[in-house]
Amino acid sequence: MALPVRTNMKHLFGLIHKFNSSKRLLCSAACSGNKEPAGGGRVFSGIQPTGVPHLGNYLGALENWVSLQSQFPSVLYSIVDLHSITQPQDPAQLRSNILDMAASLLACGIDPERAVLFQQSQVSEHAELSWILGCLTSMPRLRHLPQWKMKSKQKNEGSVGLFTYPVLQAADILLYKSTHVPVGEDQVQHLELAQDLARIFNNRYGDLFPEPAALLSSTRKVKSLRDPSVKMSKSDPHMMATISLTDSSDDIALKLRRAVTDFNSEVTFDPETRPGVSNLVTIHAAMAMIGVEEAVSQAAGLDTGAYKRLVTEAVIQRVTPIREEIQRLRADPQHLEGVLREGGCRARELAAPVLREVRQRVGFS
Amino acid sequence: MALPVRTNMKHLFGLIHKFNSSKRLLCSAACSGNKEPAGGGRVFSGIQPTGVPHLGNYLGALENWVSLQSQFPSVLYSIVDLHSITQPQDPAQLRSNILDMAASLLACGIDPERAVLFQQSQVSEHAELSWILGCLTSMPRLRHLPQWKMKSKQKNEGSVGLFTYPVLQAADILLYKSTHVPVGEDQVQHLELAQDLARIFNNRYGDLFPEPAALLSSTRKVKSLRDPSVKMSKSDPHMMATISLTDSSDDIALKLRRAVTDFNSEVTFDPETRPGVSNLVTIHAAMAMIGVEEAVSQAAGLDTGAYKRLVTEAVIQRVTPIREEIQRLRADPQHLEGVLREGGCRARELAAPVLREVRQRVGFS
Repeated sequence: MALPVRTNMKHLFGLIHKFNSSKRLLCSAACSGNKEPAGGGRVFSGIQPTGVPHLGNYLGALENWVSLQSQFPSVLYSIVDLHSITQPQDPAQLRSNILDMAASLLACGIDPERAVLFQQSQVSEHAELSWILGCLTSMPRLRHLPQWKMKSKQKNEGSVGLFTYPVLQAADILLYKSTHVPVGEDQVQHLELAQDLARIFNNRYGDLFPEPAALLSSTRKVKSLRDPSVKMSKSDPHMMATISLTDSSDDIALKLRRAVTDFNSEVTFDPETRPGVSNLVTIHAAMAMIGVEEAVSQAAGLDTGAYKRLVTEAVIQRVTPIREEIQRLRADPQHLEGVLREGGCRARELAAPVLREVRQRVGFS
Repeated sequence: MALPVRTNMKHLFGLIHKFNSSKRLLCSAACSGNKEPAGGGRVFSGIQPTGVPHLGNYLGALENWVSLQSQFPSVLYSIVDLHSITQPQDPAQLRSNILDMAASLLACGIDPERAVLFQQSQVSEHAELSWILGCLTSMPRLRHLPQWKMKSKQKNEGSVGLFTYPVLQAADILLYKSTHVPVGEDQVQHLELAQDLARIFNNRYGDLFPEPAALLSSTRKVKSLRDPSVKMSKSDPHMMATISLTDSSDDIALKLRRAVTDFNSEVTFDPETRPGVSNLVTIHAAMAMIGVEEAVSQAAGLDTGAYKRLVTEAVIQRVTPIREEIQRLRADPQHLEGVLREGGCRARELAAPVLREVRQRVGFS
């Protein structure tokens, strides 16, 4: 419960859980032709600097980020601070959140030897490519994206940055000639914009960018412990709804003990009719790295109260080493700054030649 | 007549000729308080890379740019190629136009020892600051700017870049803590946006940017030689409407001989009722560096035909050395590239510490 409640704390590109969008998302990376990177492809993903992630972030995205490191020869993970300022931020809190996010990613298993871990604003090429791509994007194209429709209503029209951030996302991805992007359902149309902009650029200036493909994952959705009809979220006003990766074992136990279930004390997995207890099964299975069926069979004979203690044990076992590593890393901000600086250098080494090529094709040099 | 006819060739920040906007534009630079640069202030202006300028550009902006070099201790002139791609551009033509504009500015008297002459896209901080300022700009604020209303109607909605370019203009200006900006009437509201964004940033993050003031000038407006009701413009479809700074003496003579006047062969200055002959007087006075009254008195006893020869002589006398210098410089693109590279380095030296400060205030570092 160390985290302040904020309204803009969800990760930018989550994992995709239930995929029902157009098929071109799935096949386009295979059509990258002679465009770099050759071989096994390159993954790009970004996460907003929201401080320490919660269990939903970990199971929904970060666990998969870790495993992608061994599945792809080139992987980039960016703390997307330029995106974060599309909503008002307190500067000191933002700075601290950037470092907390870096500590959390490292503690979760992002390995700077295998993944380029960097802070977006340290690589000027993101903003530069975003400007160029914005000149290839029509206004109606952005106006119809669901995020703008939703957020601009909440925020009374919003800022220019909030309106144009899908273009910056496209730049984030294309700048590294990324071939694969883990995306959440709510980001599918944004990835389609990146694909469209790759095509538009290639058509106008000659082949340069692969069309990035969406990466699927079987990872489960984690729900709020207080209202299992909604996702676990840092912006949840209820402190007991969300388990942070820095929560103490006592906090975890308390939150799970108070987790909403239903009048039936038997443990079954049926997310539609029994969302509360099913959410506990999801968490248990994911944390113990077992299947849902196995989790339910382990619960045989236990009422939900006793099962919560089993889930608590599984969560504490996974979270404790992560929390301890986050705390260790947090105590040394200079080390974290060094890791981000090093990652920024490596990202720039990849981005600079691509932007140089873009500049030449556009006619700037 | 060496120039292709294009549709997007007007300078971005022209000189202001008739000033009837809010008074705060005129006084705000004086209120810059402890913000750099101390002393006599800093001028920023940009011009789109439209190739060789015409007489209207020269008299309306560039002549004044030259004289500002000796009026202010710090002067920056940018060839704003990032702005140029808000409309479609042919890359090879754009590259050639950038170098032609550089040659023309030098030939007109921009002195790289006294002014920082640079290509906007070589300084990544422009796009970076533009992103940050965009997050401080509301959508309705941009939607009401007259340029978007006008251009988006012509261009069927236009690109995101066309919509957001006033934010990039604000970044161009604020990035150097500029105190004075020569602006055309049509850009007054854009300068007001830069002033607003300086204020919004200062209020939120502490004083950093002076509010840039508009620079007034008494320079006259040059009209089309074929239709004196409209400004001289490179986008004019009529080849005879515009005198380019690379026109030969024969071309100049022909265009002025064919210039539209009226049924009255006497030379008088009355722009309202006699726009054609008055335009000739304007050009004559500006080129011969005399007052309008002196120009009219020199025309005493001459009919418009004879007067056109007098005007032609004055134009040729001023344009010939400029044309010859443009041709000399054009022949050495490597030299021009070197001048822009050097200017880019100097601009970055000024921009980098400002952006570093912005990044810190925002919470990125």
